[in-house]
Amino acid sequence: MKKFPVLEIFGPTIQGEGMVIGQKTMFVRTAGCDYSCSWCDSAFTWDGSAKDDIRQLTAEEIWTELFALGGSHFSHVTISGGNPALLGNLNELIDLLHEKNVKVAIETQGSRLQPWFDQIDDLTISPKPPSSGMKTDFTKLDEIILYLRGKNRLYHASLKVVVFDEQDLEFAKMVHLKYPEIPFYLQVGNDLVHEPDDGKLISHLLTRYEWLIDRAVSEEGLNNARVLPQLHTLVWGNKRGV
Amino acid sequence: MKKFPVLEIFGPTIQGEGMVIGQKTMFVRTAGCDYSCSWCDSAFTWDGSAKDDIRQLTAEEIWTELFALGGSHFSHVTISGGNPALLGNLNELIDLLHEKNVKVAIETQGSRLQPWFDQIDDLTISPKPPSSGMKTDFTKLDEIILYLRGKNRLYHASLKVVVFDEQDLEFAKMVHLKYPEIPFYLQVGNDLVHEPDDGKLISHLLTRYEWLIDRAVSEEGLNNARVLPQLHTLVWGNKRGV
Ligand code: SF4
Ligand code: SF4
Repeated sequence: MKKFPVLEIFGPTIQGEGMVIGQKTMFVRTAGCDYSCSWCDSAFTWDGSAKDDIRQLTAEEIWTELFALGGSHFSHVTISGGNPALLGNLNELIDLLHEKNVKVAIETQGSRLQPWFDQIDDLTISPKPPSSGMKTDFTKLDEIILYLRGKNRLYHASLKVVVFDEQDLEFAKMVHLKYPEIPFYLQVGNDLVHEPDDGKLISHLLTRYEWLIDRAVSEEGLNNARVLPQLHTLVWGNKRGV
Repeated sequence: MKKFPVLEIFGPTIQGEGMVIGQKTMFVRTAGCDYSCSWCDSAFTWDGSAKDDIRQLTAEEIWTELFALGGSHFSHVTISGGNPALLGNLNELIDLLHEKNVKVAIETQGSRLQPWFDQIDDLTISPKPPSSGMKTDFTKLDEIILYLRGKNRLYHASLKVVVFDEQDLEFAKMVHLKYPEIPFYLQVGNDLVHEPDDGKLISHLLTRYEWLIDRAVSEEGLNNARVLPQLHTLVWGNKRGV
């Protein structure tokens, strides 16, 4: 059996963002990313700072840990990263979770297509806007969307763009316009990922959220968007593993 | 043409709660409710305090106002109350909005079935828990769910229960168990609807939200629930018309 690089397994908690916001879920965080976004809130998955915490686990071992933590108290698992789409054989884990009657969500930036994308119940594709310093490969993104459309899986997918500034918003509009049939989410960027004072963080993020709502509301190209904050950050601040 | 009792028309803004949380939308608030929940945050729709503000408007007149406010900047309208399901001919408005390529969401507590329920794009049915002082008529609720199932519209519907305390949570579990095929949402009750200090309100509501997450997470019967706050209250406090 294939082994996967795992950094964190935690839960049950709720999904704080995106297409299944609020959903009760467990989290499996894989290590490794092909990007290095300037504002990455999971930089420890790829910058080497947590490399001693990476464990190589089989799907069975991951399930054992999920079950030890969550018992019968979950029916949804979110695989996040890093970029879990770097893992070619992840279908071993996805299939095992489905056998256990557990639904599977994944978030990826859309730089890689994996055949198992058509098995994901809630697939969030999150192309990175200019403020990240990364450049989206739209040929690849087209390929992913085409693959999902061909498999009749667009209903299980969504696009999400994190927005920090006006340039990001322009990028978001362009992405939404390019793939109008896919549910589209705007998310407030957290530009205070190192702020330890929760009160300050919350008030700042709610102000930024209000700004993003105001901007989205004034844009005809975003009539069909959903504008969301990160709920886990509002509730738990910048803590990891909740 | 039929006239409808309208109390507020506002937007564009976002939907702050429930199945399409974050969705850019306009709001039409109708007057009148057959309930009188102890913690109703829209009591002015039925307690007489705003009766001089009620206007009798036709569907065309409502559309004219929506368009004057939102122009081309919306494609979604939420009809809330009060209880809009008291209005037998509301299909006149729903049909007109659909003609204009606008999607329609409605929230009702589930005390009345209207044939136009099968025309609603996002139908939230929100049975009231014990803390409201109201009693759910489950014969009626059964009838509504059966009607939607028969019309193959369950995909456009959701159940939402507002939770203030443990008894409410028990009620929520019972409702979810009774209708497991319908997407289920738990929402934090706002027990400070008259609090003018936004800072106090936000910190209190986030604490209550954390409590509700903790409770939902520990309940096997709520594995498939989605647990959400009211985003508009976090952003704008107890203000009306935003
Ligand atoms: S793609 Fe995601 S995990 Fe990778 S660097 Fe960017 S934000 Fe971080
Ligand atoms: S059903 Fe809704 S509008 Fe009517 S009293 Fe209860 S909370 Fe208020």
